[in-house]
Amino acid sequence: MILTVTLNTALDITYRVPALRPHAAHRVSEVTERPGGKGLNVARVLAALGHEVTVTGFAGGATGRVVRERLTGTPGVTDALVPVADATRRTIAVVDDHTGDTTQLNEPGPTITPTEWSAFQQAYEDLLASASAVALCGSLPPGVPVGAYAHLVRSAKAAGVPVLLDTSGEALRRGVAARPDVIKPNADELAELTGSHEPSRATQDARRRGARSVVASLGEAGLLAVTPEGHWRATPPTRLHGNPTGAGDAAVAGLLSGLVEQLPWPDRLARAAALSAASVTAPVAGEFDREVYEELLGRVAVTSEASAA
Amino acid sequence: MILTVTLNTALDITYRVPALRPHAAHRVSEVTERPGGKGLNVARVLAALGHEVTVTGFAGGATGRVVRERLTGTPGVTDALVPVADATRRTIAVVDDHTGDTTQLNEPGPTITPTEWSAFQQAYEDLLASASAVALCGSLPPGVPVGAYAHLVRSAKAAGVPVLLDTSGEALRRGVAARPDVIKPNADELAELTGSHEPSRATQDARRRGARSVVASLGEAGLLAVTPEGHWRATPPTRLHGNPTGAGDAAVAGLLSGLVEQLPWPDRLARAAALSAASVTAPVAGEFDREVYEELLGRVAVTSEASAA
Repeated sequence: MILTVTLNTALDITYRVPALRPHAAHRVSEVTERPGGKGLNVARVLAALGHEVTVTGFAGGATGRVVRERLTGTPGVTDALVPVADATRRTIAVVDDHTGDTTQLNEPGPTITPTEWSAFQQAYEDLLASASAVALCGSLPPGVPVGAYAHLVRSAKAAGVPVLLDTSGEALRRGVAARPDVIKPNADELAELTGSHEPSRATQDARRRGARSVVASLGEAGLLAVTPEGHWRATPPTRLHGNPTGAGDAAVAGLLSGLVEQLPWPDRLARAAALSAASVTAPVAGEFDREVYEELLGRVAVTSEASAA
Repeated sequence: MILTVTLNTALDITYRVPALRPHAAHRVSEVTERPGGKGLNVARVLAALGHEVTVTGFAGGATGRVVRERLTGTPGVTDALVPVADATRRTIAVVDDHTGDTTQLNEPGPTITPTEWSAFQQAYEDLLASASAVALCGSLPPGVPVGAYAHLVRSAKAAGVPVLLDTSGEALRRGVAARPDVIKPNADELAELTGSHEPSRATQDARRRGARSVVASLGEAGLLAVTPEGHWRATPPTRLHGNPTGAGDAAVAGLLSGLVEQLPWPDRLARAAALSAASVTAPVAGEFDREVYEELLGRVAVTSEASAA
């Protein structure tokens, strides 16, 4: 199975309102709820691609119960979340029917105790024994040490399990130094890591910091990959409009499934770029439009980039 | 015991954010959760005044479980909520730390099935047998007939239990016609019921529509009461600043406790006005500042109004 780790899971709630006006009272016309957090989104896309996925991380409180109930109903996804005392955070996306824009309210995560963090590390080591690959995704909740991902990367490597890291800030900086197989920063995360806003230079710099391969997701500019086997850029043929939340998670699922299936890099990148584009036309993170995906897959342009390294 | 009915209970969530900007992403700095809905607020105030209170209405889903868990921890309040399949609504108050203003997002209530409505009516009849008074509070969730309060008023009267109705719109219009002992509209609800924006005329018109007594809560202008025993205005001595949410619920608790204690109307009104003012300085609905309440109680001016009826 493929293992995804989401230390800061969420109950993602979407509200539709006619128009959001600060300091007014609003009747919410539609409420949707789903398990959230990057690793859970990655897991849903992997499961839709036919892979067996196990999700771990933390879940607690009434919100954690809802997250777990919903996961139980997702075919192909096995729940191995570790229970914690504090409640899983909510995120609220308020969609303005008039403008189509979204206002996001994100609760802080639960505070993880040292005992809970130890319990997670043990569960993670046990799960690695049967994992073909692992993705470490998203932010760290309060209480988890900032070097957490570095530790989890080292455990995966010690167990011989390929590891992809998708996070930001100091957690990414520390994690990269532990030499993960792949990182997938977006443009902002890459610039924050390297200090460079020039993607080609920054991507290569990120490799020098420890990542074996770097796949930067650059929005409309597609994916830029710098790997030991070569450098490529993957660009979807058309610009799609919709909800960009979850596009990066779909790309991670594409890269991870391609890795497990031992596809050559250009095929992995084509899949990741097509999934990413097809997730933009789906209404929520963790889903993609299969018809759009299949139509785009053969039409993603993957071009070899000159190596400057 | 005093019975309060909240057909549309809520999990009231408050978020603090540095500044709310539409279409931006916000980190919530503080999250608080509490049982909500007018009747639950009334119950908490009554319990703080030393009365035994039973709360009924509907609760369902993960949010309903949290509401019930929290109620269990409230001394003096007995939970007799009727379980439903659909989830209790959330309300989200986003408090802007910069301006102090609040933006409110209210989910629609759960849809109540005919079977659930029948189960509630049976539970309500059973509870009336040991009730000294009943308050019917707030909006109707989807599925509950618009004539619901009229029915519940009639049942209370048939059981010989004094009944106070605090709702709005069509539910109030229908409920008044069933001749409740007291209604407590605010200025907007009163105007909507009677078509008149002149409080004295509107209050008397509301009596003619069926209410035995009408106590209008007019914000800074205090309470205006039109009863068979006389007409009064109760005005607190000072204008207090703070959170007006729950001020009406505190007034209902004052009126109801005064009724059960068989206080003369002027004393009931003084208590209701003092509680209402003391709730404005408390941070959340269903609480009041006891020191402010006790200090104000003797200083509320209750004046007899000339009867124009």
